[in-house]
Amino acid sequence: MSSEARTADALAEAAVREIESGMLVGLGTGRAAKRGIHALADRVKNENLKVQCVPTSNGSEALAKELGLELVDFALVEKIDYLFDGADEVDKELRVLKGSGGAMTRERIVAWAADRVVYMVDDSKLVDRLGRNNTLAIAVLAFGLTAIRSELRAMGLIGVCRRDMNGDLFITDNGNLILDVTLEDDADLERISAALNDIPGVIDHGLFLYEADEVLVDRGEGKIERLIRPEEEDQEHG
Amino acid sequence: MSSEARTADALAEAAVREIESGMLVGLGTGRAAKRGIHALADRVKNENLKVQCVPTSNGSEALAKELGLELVDFALVEKIDYLFDGADEVDKELRVLKGSGGAMTRERIVAWAADRVVYMVDDSKLVDRLGRNNTLAIAVLAFGLTAIRSELRAMGLIGVCRRDMNGDLFITDNGNLILDVTLEDDADLERISAALNDIPGVIDHGLFLYEADEVLVDRGEGKIERLIRPEEEDQEHG
Repeated sequence: MSSEARTADALAEAAVREIESGMLVGLGTGRAAKRGIHALADRVKNENLKVQCVPTSNGSEALAKELGLELVDFALVEKIDYLFDGADEVDKELRVLKGSGGAMTRERIVAWAADRVVYMVDDSKLVDRLGRNNTLAIAVLAFGLTAIRSELRAMGLIGVCRRDMNGDLFITDNGNLILDVTLEDDADLERISAALNDIPGVIDHGLFLYEADEVLVDRGEGKIERLIRPEEEDQEHG
Repeated sequence: MSSEARTADALAEAAVREIESGMLVGLGTGRAAKRGIHALADRVKNENLKVQCVPTSNGSEALAKELGLELVDFALVEKIDYLFDGADEVDKELRVLKGSGGAMTRERIVAWAADRVVYMVDDSKLVDRLGRNNTLAIAVLAFGLTAIRSELRAMGLIGVCRRDMNGDLFITDNGNLILDVTLEDDADLERISAALNDIPGVIDHGLFLYEADEVLVDRGEGKIERLIRPEEEDQEHG
């Protein structure tokens, strides 16, 4: 096994270490989450762990099926025990930026339903401010596209409609469009997040300010740092 | 023409009276809105009025086409001049309950984009509190159905999934489900509206607390009362 693969495993193994038999587990979306799904499937095989899983995207569902994980339909589920997922950026307050994969709506619904939410990143994802290296993804109803962009512009949020590699408009699993907008250096994230929720036609966005209970950081060479939200007991969904 | 038809026309005529050539006009959804669409089409024919229209539902689009109104794609539109629409209930503060038709998401996006928003009702729709005679419609992503219902229950909002006449789940124009929940006598509508916007997977709901600029009330026998929002100048989208 190469050094790179061993490093990757350490993060994924840490992300699934606290999962116990009987748990209902949320499976995130993206490359880091896929590593977690592999690590979870290994534990199911090697330790006879008995868990049921809820995928947050069609991609994670396909991988989980392929690896023989037992899936349940989230539409029938009230609460889940544990969610692991990747993140695009994390700041010092464990606020998270997501959405590069376009699945954030499902990821957030599952995060809200989860008793414990763990994001897994390598240390290049730690930033002094969200928006440092990525745009903010905003999922919108195609019906209101121009009017919604006008509302966003009034909030100082300017950007472009996401397109796929063929140049066609990118459509989410739920049939919406994604606007990728720039976050300014001094952006007030709490205010932006609340204002976005109030704009009709905005389905969701990539600011996950209150969701993380814990962030696992891959510091390289197999060293994993565990960051816990300090005010965790006081905060439920912000 | 029967007395009933004359009464109906008075409301619809009042709803389209202030529309002028050159305007971009939003067409609401439902029975009252359809009467307005007919009245607008009459003015286009009889007065050579030149307007373009944005429908808020597939049903209104079909009627407008049939009557020869010129339509534009709302996805390309930033602002519209005037919207007329129906309402299920209106209270003394001109707060409006909508959603019995399931089209409230598009109706609200168009209302936000409109310079002037006019609701047309007969006086049986005036209530001392919203929720008096109707449930509150909440449009949700099917993916999170049970988890979202659990969040709503924690807010005291209890209800059922809307079904069509065949007993199948009702699906909105945007592919979502509708939960119809009961509003208690002492419900804090501002608080509920803000909290609903913050729940992931809730797409929209029937509380239109800040949208109305004006409500036209059919008092019977051709008498139309015009109610204007007093603090209109101060309030933009609440």
